[in-house]
Amino acid sequence: MAELEVTVNGKAQSTDESAAGTDRHRRIDAANAEAVRRLDEAEPVLVDVLPARDVVPGLGDRMVLHSGPPVGWQRMSGAQRGAVIGMLLFEEWAGSVEEAAALLESGAIELDANHAHQAVGPMAGTISPSLPVYVVDDRANGTRAFCRNVEGMQQFGAYGAAALDILRAWRDVHAPSFSAALRHSGPIELKPLLARGIDMGDELHNRPNATTLLFGVDMGRRMVRAGVAAEAIASTLDLCYYNPYTALGLSMAAGKAMADSLRDLEYSSVVRAMARNGTEFGIKVAGLGDRWFVAPAPLADGLYWPGFSEADANPDMGDSAITETVGWGGCVIAGAPGILALTGGTPTDAFEWTRQNASISLARSSTYKLPALAFQGAPIGIDIRRVVETGITPVIDSAIAHKVPGIGMIGSGIVRAPLACFQQALEAFEQRYAGGLVIGR
Amino acid sequence: MAELEVTVNGKAQSTDESAAGTDRHRRIDAANAEAVRRLDEAEPVLVDVLPARDVVPGLGDRMVLHSGPPVGWQRMSGAQRGAVIGMLLFEEWAGSVEEAAALLESGAIELDANHAHQAVGPMAGTISPSLPVYVVDDRANGTRAFCRNVEGMQQFGAYGAAALDILRAWRDVHAPSFSAALRHSGPIELKPLLARGIDMGDELHNRPNATTLLFGVDMGRRMVRAGVAAEAIASTLDLCYYNPYTALGLSMAAGKAMADSLRDLEYSSVVRAMARNGTEFGIKVAGLGDRWFVAPAPLADGLYWPGFSEADANPDMGDSAITETVGWGGCVIAGAPGILALTGGTPTDAFEWTRQNASISLARSSTYKLPALAFQGAPIGIDIRRVVETGITPVIDSAIAHKVPGIGMIGSGIVRAPLACFQQALEAFEQRYAGGLVIGR
Repeated sequence: MAELEVTVNGKAQSTDESAAGTDRHRRIDAANAEAVRRLDEAEPVLVDVLPARDVVPGLGDRMVLHSGPPVGWQRMSGAQRGAVIGMLLFEEWAGSVEEAAALLESGAIELDANHAHQAVGPMAGTISPSLPVYVVDDRANGTRAFCRNVEGMQQFGAYGAAALDILRAWRDVHAPSFSAALRHSGPIELKPLLARGIDMGDELHNRPNATTLLFGVDMGRRMVRAGVAAEAIASTLDLCYYNPYTALGLSMAAGKAMADSLRDLEYSSVVRAMARNGTEFGIKVAGLGDRWFVAPAPLADGLYWPGFSEADANPDMGDSAITETVGWGGCVIAGAPGILALTGGTPTDAFEWTRQNASISLARSSTYKLPALAFQGAPIGIDIRRVVETGITPVIDSAIAHKVPGIGMIGSGIVRAPLACFQQALEAFEQRYAGGLVIGR
Repeated sequence: MAELEVTVNGKAQSTDESAAGTDRHRRIDAANAEAVRRLDEAEPVLVDVLPARDVVPGLGDRMVLHSGPPVGWQRMSGAQRGAVIGMLLFEEWAGSVEEAAALLESGAIELDANHAHQAVGPMAGTISPSLPVYVVDDRANGTRAFCRNVEGMQQFGAYGAAALDILRAWRDVHAPSFSAALRHSGPIELKPLLARGIDMGDELHNRPNATTLLFGVDMGRRMVRAGVAAEAIASTLDLCYYNPYTALGLSMAAGKAMADSLRDLEYSSVVRAMARNGTEFGIKVAGLGDRWFVAPAPLADGLYWPGFSEADANPDMGDSAITETVGWGGCVIAGAPGILALTGGTPTDAFEWTRQNASISLARSSTYKLPALAFQGAPIGIDIRRVVETGITPVIDSAIAHKVPGIGMIGSGIVRAPLACFQQALEAFEQRYAGGLVIGR
């Protein structure tokens, strides 16, 4: 059996000089080159914004999807529980928090991971049937993915009237307005949109501010031309003006469509999902099917809003690390120093974080370029072998929720993916492909 | 008579230890502290967008204003001549280029500098009576200033149909739409708008891209609520989507209103205008009235569009250095590396340019902060004494026009204000205030 495959300075360092080892090495390199090519040549386009029940495959009538690996009600963290309760109130499956909690305890509501349904969601990530989702196709790779709206309350576990009103406005006003605009004028190509966002200091995860504005101006003219009612246009432009996270739903859906193009790419050691449910952090690997490799979710290291501290923090949560999975977020934070006002850290730290993520990645994007690094491309293709070999785990930008259901957001910070996920994945990779090769098929 | 006043590391270094010298020193420091306070506490607001004839003081019926110090037709550079010809065609004072040139040769058309009329304009800077201008009030300082629209053709000297159509659309569609929105919903505070732009990697001179989008989203919702016609809203949002320089008119008008608050501020050695007409570069100083201190306009050092070179370049042109005068543009280019794709230079160069402009400035803005410099404020208050003492002249972002009338833009680059302007100004300052002090009043 071949020994562990490792890389140093970007070169594969096979410790197995046998013919089988060389062949294995070649197959892994070829698969990873293909993975990087797919990520680099992806062509995500926003085609519509529709209720989840109309588009998300396998979404049951009384089902709530959530972020991260599957977790179930009993093991679910406080913030994610609060968010799920919020969805039951939003769907009017329950008339009170107590009723919602009882329904969830009883098992009458199905829960499942977004990632099993081509979907992603921010923080708690909850998607229920009537919540509209961005529909993004990757036209180069033939994948489709969904992401819900990004707001500042319910997804953090709040379920009060103010939190639910945001979801209702999204369902009744903003999503239908976007949908009407897209149907009238056609899809929006996200590649230039997101690349221009990075050029304006966004990292497309915790800071999609300029991208949101570019999206807002583009949707504004499209909504007007589609004949959307004046008050709905004005309200939707208010959303883009006041909620800088609006475009995070686009980068997440694009990221999911791009990353899903790596699904079942045999022999590839490239990460194709990183996600957290507030209890566990999990990753998936291109060549290792749908298996999650999990470890306890870490706490973010960041800045707390006045009156809150780490003692209040829910462990890290959200599918939003799909952005780092395709080379954004912490991978390009060197070019987005504006985010440091939220997360803490210095510009020098940000350069170091990008450098570290690059050191465990296989290539550079030919599209997403960083002005602050003299237009060097974003690092793409995180390789589990490099992570284990260097001990450097991906740096991820994140937000922080209160651990008690019903409260919401309390800060922002930086989180490190747990090394254990990558170690387990590499072990499984080794078992699968080293053995397979010796057999020769 | 007191000797030359110089500063080292921000401390006044008077070489005259006499009582008169000490008093003079104290008065200069106090006046400069007041200058910096005015710049820092300025509250520019966009109140309307109106035809120049309705608002610009002293604008004659057959007058064209231009950028830089007064120059006159005979000494005017090719690009600025082309732009003035464009305005005659736009106003329909002439039916052909030849007719326009003949009118200008005859002296039948008055020409004057924008700066003498509370106005500024980009590149050739031409303002004629029916061209709408942004109207910006500095509510803290009680000043008002105007700037025309910023586009990519006529202001660079082009006068063909495509160039004039942009001015016509501005006059007939875009400016009236902005005006209707502002009248319906009230003025826009520019301080938060511009600060958010800098936070998104703008330097507000050659790169106002994110600011333009923020302005676009804000104006979009205001235009809708004001009941502006759908096609006019859509066209105006197209302008914000496709012309990233739209917001430069805002930062220039704001800069002019702010800088004019320093006019006739006795004893202040702070620069209150830097402007170029394609023939001469000129500066004004707070304590030296309306006098221009001029030197030949330099060529920008930059990147040329394919097919063009320095041999084609008009000398530097435009009132847009009003942005550097109040601490933007080259003063904050370290935070706007995206511009380097246009101007050339590396991120390291950009940090050095900002550092140099800071070294000749007296203070840091408490509003306009640079994420890339760990949220340090923009350098404000360029002191002619520091410039002469260090030999470091302000770094200015600029665009490049073809020197032949009628062609237009051919590149972008970086320009240095000529040292001779500052040397002449310091000499005049010394003559005025050293003598004045001995007399004691």
